[in-house]
Amino acid sequence: MDTKAFNSMLAAAKTASKGIGNSSTATRNAALTEIAKVLIDRTKEIVSANQFDLENGKQAGLASGLLDRLKLDGVRVAALADSLQTVIDIPDPLGEIVRGRTLHNGVKIQQIRVPFGVIGAIYEARPNVTVDIASLALKSGNTVLLRGGTAAENTNRVLVAAIQDALKTVGLPAEAVQTIDEFGREGATALMQATGFVDVLIPRGSAELIRTVVTESTVPVIETGSGIVHIYIDASAPKEWAIDIVRNAKEQRPSVCNAAETLLIHKDAAARFYPELAAALHEQGGVVIHADEAALKLYADAEPASEVDWQTEYLTLDLSVRVVENLDEALNHISRYSTKHTEAIVTEDYANAERFLNEVDAAVVMVNASTRFTDGGEFGFGAEVGISTQKLHARGPMGLQELTSTKWLVRGNGQIRK
Amino acid sequence: MDTKAFNSMLAAAKTASKGIGNSSTATRNAALTEIAKVLIDRTKEIVSANQFDLENGKQAGLASGLLDRLKLDGVRVAALADSLQTVIDIPDPLGEIVRGRTLHNGVKIQQIRVPFGVIGAIYEARPNVTVDIASLALKSGNTVLLRGGTAAENTNRVLVAAIQDALKTVGLPAEAVQTIDEFGREGATALMQATGFVDVLIPRGSAELIRTVVTESTVPVIETGSGIVHIYIDASAPKEWAIDIVRNAKEQRPSVCNAAETLLIHKDAAARFYPELAAALHEQGGVVIHADEAALKLYADAEPASEVDWQTEYLTLDLSVRVVENLDEALNHISRYSTKHTEAIVTEDYANAERFLNEVDAAVVMVNASTRFTDGGEFGFGAEVGISTQKLHARGPMGLQELTSTKWLVRGNGQIRK
Repeated sequence: MDTKAFNSMLAAAKTASKGIGNSSTATRNAALTEIAKVLIDRTKEIVSANQFDLENGKQAGLASGLLDRLKLDGVRVAALADSLQTVIDIPDPLGEIVRGRTLHNGVKIQQIRVPFGVIGAIYEARPNVTVDIASLALKSGNTVLLRGGTAAENTNRVLVAAIQDALKTVGLPAEAVQTIDEFGREGATALMQATGFVDVLIPRGSAELIRTVVTESTVPVIETGSGIVHIYIDASAPKEWAIDIVRNAKEQRPSVCNAAETLLIHKDAAARFYPELAAALHEQGGVVIHADEAALKLYADAEPASEVDWQTEYLTLDLSVRVVENLDEALNHISRYSTKHTEAIVTEDYANAERFLNEVDAAVVMVNASTRFTDGGEFGFGAEVGISTQKLHARGPMGLQELTSTKWLVRGNGQIRK
Repeated sequence: MDTKAFNSMLAAAKTASKGIGNSSTATRNAALTEIAKVLIDRTKEIVSANQFDLENGKQAGLASGLLDRLKLDGVRVAALADSLQTVIDIPDPLGEIVRGRTLHNGVKIQQIRVPFGVIGAIYEARPNVTVDIASLALKSGNTVLLRGGTAAENTNRVLVAAIQDALKTVGLPAEAVQTIDEFGREGATALMQATGFVDVLIPRGSAELIRTVVTESTVPVIETGSGIVHIYIDASAPKEWAIDIVRNAKEQRPSVCNAAETLLIHKDAAARFYPELAAALHEQGGVVIHADEAALKLYADAEPASEVDWQTEYLTLDLSVRVVENLDEALNHISRYSTKHTEAIVTEDYANAERFLNEVDAAVVMVNASTRFTDGGEFGFGAEVGISTQKLHARGPMGLQELTSTKWLVRGNGQIRK
């Protein structure tokens, strides 16, 4: 690795962070408008670079799901440009007064929202993430160093060049958005060690990628995690809600982290409507059910579930199912297998709903709603950087506020400490 | 190290965290009242254990400053018991609704404050920190694993036993506060690797201790940092304010992180009153001045400053002094040498004050007040866990709020995602 070139990129990111951090809301929004324009103007170039990445991916034998996430066509580029407008429309988080008071001695203290400075992002081969993260970083006054998956390298290079040209057009430093892809794996490792230059590192992707970053990084990390998402159908659950929610959570987009992976169903609810629910999932939705013994007895067209199923984030049209005696058994199962992303209960029992909300330890805990709502867009944050499953700084969908830090401003007139 | 014993301690901390996290405010406050009572009742035992540690420390040749921080006598134990009342009086942070809204589809989302779960603390031989951190952790519904400096091992053992007995008296799990001192350095290393058991690790102590924790830890860390604190005296600074603030910031308690280490003074202010300021510092305050050439010319009874002085957190009655041409030169100096703890300007110029507040990147930026105010107690947080110099999660003095995480509660009536 050309360490000198890498280090000068770090230094440039740090310098650029002052320009971005002190720029006006209007200038940062103008940059986002310009990025949308440049993306549209260069659609042909972007799609052509992406075709090249897709060809390489096919030859390397990438799975069809990965190829789909890698793909950018005209429609998807237009959608990316559109999503920038959403980010423009969100209020600027910078300068917000979080807390403040006047101390007994007349000293005024005020905690205000400021940018982190330099954000590092390590993610897999999804070019739309390049634009999402860059736009949220810029809106929140940060600069960003991007390390995308190698399979998307050509697409990302063209996207970053477009973003840099847009920044220059509005008079902001181009180095506010840089890709370190050219430095390969060594670049990623160096990014994790860049204490003093990188203020926070966000890994987004597989559990393995995130584990590597957490282990190797000396820079503070915000983990965005995998989701073994459970839905518990309580004894009192209305049949329609239960079927709608489970099918939506499993079938609408099985490849994402907020999709359901395990269904826990109270024995009374199972007796009432599990055969109907299972038939809808399997016969209409094409879901492969991995069922425990009790569930198999009620609907036989399923695989038998084993210990491994409870520990698996399928990300496919598979669902593990377990019949439980009561809420306690459901809570114990969740406590043991949850990845602390999203957990849901379907119930009409007030006490059970409140107990579930209180006792389940997860970023998002739901009553009577689809787990697919755990999403920055759905929560009204605009685009999202990822969903944090750690407890420090950010928990759940991360929007602009989660990309900021704070500082205390103290104003006195000569006060000293007694 | 007895790994089995260590792991069962981790598991007990995790189990206890549910008991503490779900306990009422009244119960947690009762525990704090009981701890205060037990500390007073056992003063003799505590002081005697401390005497033993002090003797060992003297024989090991500990510096007098360290011995002073290690010492607990009757007066100090009483002060510790008193400080628990302050923590009792602070409102319970748990359950606070941070944000919330109803989405367009009728789904209600609500972000509420919850405990982290298990907090790890690694600190130096200061027994008062044991009580401070334990009381803040309990008040905020967390359990804590403590690793204090070896030199305070006997004092800490007696303190933790007293706290555990108090917890049992009010029906809370004794394992909510545990010391891992018995496992030595290996225990500290294991604590840093206890992913899944420890939710956040707080190192408090020397720069070296903090660097070790940041490098070795896979658990999320909140860095509490050292302070190379600057005071810039602007051209327009009123002489009385400047002298009061610099002397207070340097002399009142030089061994702590919010004490001033470097004075930057505008040439016009220097011409106006630097000789008087330097004489007060040196002749009345006993401060050893390390001055640049220009400052030496104005007041000669000083050491010449070298590059090393600008990089040094003295923590003693030493002060480095540099005369600057203008605010830009002061800002550049601060940007280069600041540890991002606390930085202050003394000025009557509105534009310069605002520019300083805006451009200086530090946890706390002050105008016309002593840097000694960067303190959880002074900010009204009650006792403090430390002062965070990182940008993630907490920045500046850390009180109860900084010891909590959040979770999202989502309530619907059958909504699914379109």
